[in-house]
Amino acid sequence: MDPDSLSKAFVEHYYSTFDTNRPALAGLYQDGSMLTFEGEKIQGAQQIGAKLNSLPFTQCKHNVSTVDCQPSGPAGGMVVFVSGNLQLQGEEHLLKFSQMFHLIPTPTGSFFVFNDIFRLNYA
Amino acid sequence: MDPDSLSKAFVEHYYSTFDTNRPALAGLYQDGSMLTFEGEKIQGAQQIGAKLNSLPFTQCKHNVSTVDCQPSGPAGGMVVFVSGNLQLQGEEHLLKFSQMFHLIPTPTGSFFVFNDIFRLNYA
Repeated sequence: MDPDSLSKAFVEHYYSTFDTNRPALAGLYQDGSMLTFEGEKIQGAQQIGAKLNSLPFTQCKHNVSTVDCQPSGPAGGMVVFVSGNLQLQGEEHLLKFSQMFHLIPTPTGSFFVFNDIFRLNYA
Repeated sequence: MDPDSLSKAFVEHYYSTFDTNRPALAGLYQDGSMLTFEGEKIQGAQQIGAKLNSLPFTQCKHNVSTVDCQPSGPAGGMVVFVSGNLQLQGEEHLLKFSQMFHLIPTPTGSFFVFNDIFRLNYA
């Protein structure tokens, strides 16, 4: 699969998991993984999973507008940059967001999220 | 200098150069560097410089709202995520943007831009 298709597949999988089975997101991270969520820094798969599960909304729907990706170096990683909007249950207004992932290949041919930075784009 | 201070210094330098001496931006990239600008992929310092210099406005001012950074791996690189707005000469409305950089250390103790992804955040 080419990098663009791979990154789109990852992004679809990530937000579909977020919206339908959020506790499973922790499995996409490892111990060294980092999340910066609206400026708050969290490290480690377990801590990142706990943060994502503690967000103050139970249901949401991510709509992806753009996905850009580039290889991140000789080791087979890639950086993925997403823009889109987020609808929370009971909220009329969409929240625009941008998010970047740095994906690192695993020995089994899959990827895990090493870097994750999320920001809402306030209007 | 800690990574947060380093990334803020880089971001200030990058946009100050963009706004006052755009032809010098090419010096921040190397031959393997990649830019994805609004979905268009460009590779190489010279080609990236040419693209940035060919943008259809001569004067602009970047205002940075947030800068987030994380180490990108054992080799000393870092990913930097910026949100802000952009004012073009003669335009009343500000353009919101997000941009990510993957910075790689050079043997002389400086950094160059390996990955650069830029997107306007349309309202």
